[in-house]
Amino acid sequence: MAVPGMIEGFSKLDRDSRIRLVAALSDESAGTEAVFSSHLLEDSERQHAYHEISENAVSNYILPLGIAPNFNINGKYYLVPMVTEESSVVAAAAAAAKFWATRGGFVTRVQQMIKPGHIHFIWQGSESELTVFFTGIKPALEEAVKPLTRNMELRGGGIHRISLIDLSARLPGYHQIEVLFGTADSMGANFINSCLEAMAAELVARAAPTFPGRLEVIMAILSNHTPDCLVSCQVSARVEEFALAASGLSGADFARRFVLAVEMARVEPSRAVTHNKGIYNGVDAVVLATGNDFRATEAAGHAWAARDGVYRGLSRAWTEDGALHLMLEIPLALGTVGGLTRTHPMAAAALKVLGNPGAATLMGIAAAAGLANNYSAVKALVTGGIQQGHMRLHLPNLLRQWQATPDEMAAAAEYFMNKPVSYQAVGSFLNTLRTTKAYKP
Amino acid sequence: MAVPGMIEGFSKLDRDSRIRLVAALSDESAGTEAVFSSHLLEDSERQHAYHEISENAVSNYILPLGIAPNFNINGKYYLVPMVTEESSVVAAAAAAAKFWATRGGFVTRVQQMIKPGHIHFIWQGSESELTVFFTGIKPALEEAVKPLTRNMELRGGGIHRISLIDLSARLPGYHQIEVLFGTADSMGANFINSCLEAMAAELVARAAPTFPGRLEVIMAILSNHTPDCLVSCQVSARVEEFALAASGLSGADFARRFVLAVEMARVEPSRAVTHNKGIYNGVDAVVLATGNDFRATEAAGHAWAARDGVYRGLSRAWTEDGALHLMLEIPLALGTVGGLTRTHPMAAAALKVLGNPGAATLMGIAAAAGLANNYSAVKALVTGGIQQGHMRLHLPNLLRQWQATPDEMAAAAEYFMNKPVSYQAVGSFLNTLRTTKAYKP
Repeated sequence: MAVPGMIEGFSKLDRDSRIRLVAALSDESAGTEAVFSSHLLEDSERQHAYHEISENAVSNYILPLGIAPNFNINGKYYLVPMVTEESSVVAAAAAAAKFWATRGGFVTRVQQMIKPGHIHFIWQGSESELTVFFTGIKPALEEAVKPLTRNMELRGGGIHRISLIDLSARLPGYHQIEVLFGTADSMGANFINSCLEAMAAELVARAAPTFPGRLEVIMAILSNHTPDCLVSCQVSARVEEFALAASGLSGADFARRFVLAVEMARVEPSRAVTHNKGIYNGVDAVVLATGNDFRATEAAGHAWAARDGVYRGLSRAWTEDGALHLMLEIPLALGTVGGLTRTHPMAAAALKVLGNPGAATLMGIAAAAGLANNYSAVKALVTGGIQQGHMRLHLPNLLRQWQATPDEMAAAAEYFMNKPVSYQAVGSFLNTLRTTKAYKP
Repeated sequence: MAVPGMIEGFSKLDRDSRIRLVAALSDESAGTEAVFSSHLLEDSERQHAYHEISENAVSNYILPLGIAPNFNINGKYYLVPMVTEESSVVAAAAAAAKFWATRGGFVTRVQQMIKPGHIHFIWQGSESELTVFFTGIKPALEEAVKPLTRNMELRGGGIHRISLIDLSARLPGYHQIEVLFGTADSMGANFINSCLEAMAAELVARAAPTFPGRLEVIMAILSNHTPDCLVSCQVSARVEEFALAASGLSGADFARRFVLAVEMARVEPSRAVTHNKGIYNGVDAVVLATGNDFRATEAAGHAWAARDGVYRGLSRAWTEDGALHLMLEIPLALGTVGGLTRTHPMAAAALKVLGNPGAATLMGIAAAAGLANNYSAVKALVTGGIQQGHMRLHLPNLLRQWQATPDEMAAAAEYFMNKPVSYQAVGSFLNTLRTTKAYKP
């Protein structure tokens, strides 16, 4: 059934009324209503907490929380919680983690965690006049946010710098007041935006009498572009360690092919996009699991990938003194307090599994997951393609698409152990199975 | 309790053993185990399906499935399912959808849905020699994938073009065979990778006797960089329609400020990153809800944003003939069959709520959600800041962080109806409430 037109007051309906209405207007109403209802938690208080996360909720969308064990990061072992809808991401992370754990592990480093925000405004006048004005009101801007920064300062954060940026060459009159923030272990979006809005109000109040109509604030908001909130992660091992009997590659051959594959992603955007997508398979699985915001990490990371004017792969690989080195450096503004990190029950549990890390430690863990997935993906690519391994993991999904029974699934798992998996091959196998007399379902 | 070191055989444990092990090694073991266990579905068959989506699963990560009603897209009304952890995203989409529904709605357009893949190889020899060889083996490459493309061709997809690309100026010897695919309503990743691997095997088999050791295939894989799989989405309304009594802005003032804000994101990367992040708040919520892959859509979109050498905002706004126009154009390779779209029960339900659209229609819906969120965010920014509205939506989370009881929550909701919301303000309010004699919990 199609949606007839405008629906008034949807957000004011209670959940069950919303479910009935949405199901009634969807294809296969009864089935849709059953799926929505059957995914609600028994515990109504807990269920309610999920419905308060965002608006107009009708049900729960489930993604598996998986664990990639054996991450040795800076000498400490972690079980890394990962949330993803993509098969083989957790398996790939776990395989890489295990390989590197006994070879020095992942070495991560966070130098600083600075997050910028801006008051964007249009100025009609000379640069010198604006500079004098800005210098004069800077203390008042700092003063305006004192009530907001007091607690943040106690936690080790606060305001690092306030500066005036002239962008009028790009857009007539365009200027910014850039404010650099430290937000300790919180992601800090609300704090930063509150500070910027208070400063913008102060700016407007000061400018209005002095320059009537000549300074117009357009907006005040944090930026997710965080080139001063970088984490690096590196792994290294002797080239001989990469000898692969199965693919017939020597360690030196593997290392050479691996470095070439990473280099191709550095110089060719079509390859870089998918190379980086594979990195964020790992990063975002940790970001999601810990209640952080993957749109923010993605936007920051890909813009950073394009910082020199060409969109490039985010990792680098090289051989030096007989060892293969793989390194990733990405911006990653994460929080381990505030936001959903403690109010989302599963995010809170994920942080406990990680030993309740601070933000810098979590940045290292997410980067290690990204590098682990990058290593596994590039390794699979240069040693014979990802498709066969991936399709094997995809086998259960393919079987379900062909409506396989549990018995058929077991038979298929055995049959496809050493045969190529594809949608058609699974269909043919099931067809043969179903038309064979000896087969009893 | 910290993780002691390497754990062997984790993937071979059954789920309950994994839960016990992970909980035992986490902070607050008993609580962690209870959270993991209490989130499993009663129906064990359904639960099992989620555990097969990815590996090493211990529990279910829940995100609310919300509905943004009143999306008028190309004249048809949709209830748009959205999955996000960020408060105000669904509300913002719904508010924008309602505003635009009676003003012509969202007009979307998909011109083509071409997805590229590449065989990446190193060639040692002359360009002319390689070109002759490539031209000669091209029919054999096409022939090698016939068994794979037959079904796809019946569904309207297949191979559009196979070409040779010389990238040796960027990396010595680097060349690609680029294959452009149509994958109909499927995202097509498995199909594309299977085709490319089959072609790569054929390429190697043909090159080996002719050019021993001179042509080395490094990898064969699809690209998520899809500049020929674009969707555009536009809204337009008379400038007078934007007069806002509450903020005291005339329609013309609003339109001028709105266009300036969008223009700032076009010329300034720090602003562009967050501008685009807001667009993907909407896009990815639909991508997630329908069982698609948000890392792929993010990587494609942000690389596209940087295509001219500067990272830019993805939307454009302008006034023309007395109307304000807002337009978004992004690459968006989505599927409505295959992958998780039908095997994830909630993704399948989400697609039914949308009336079981094809891939091109879903691209338009996701783009409309992106544009809706972009409109709402920029509108909020240029009319007084997003923080107050956002913080009000955040109030329940803040109350939970202060361990508010249901009674306290009700009192707070009333109290903060017309007062600024902040973490500290909520704490102070609760403190006053709790120390007031008249208050009975």
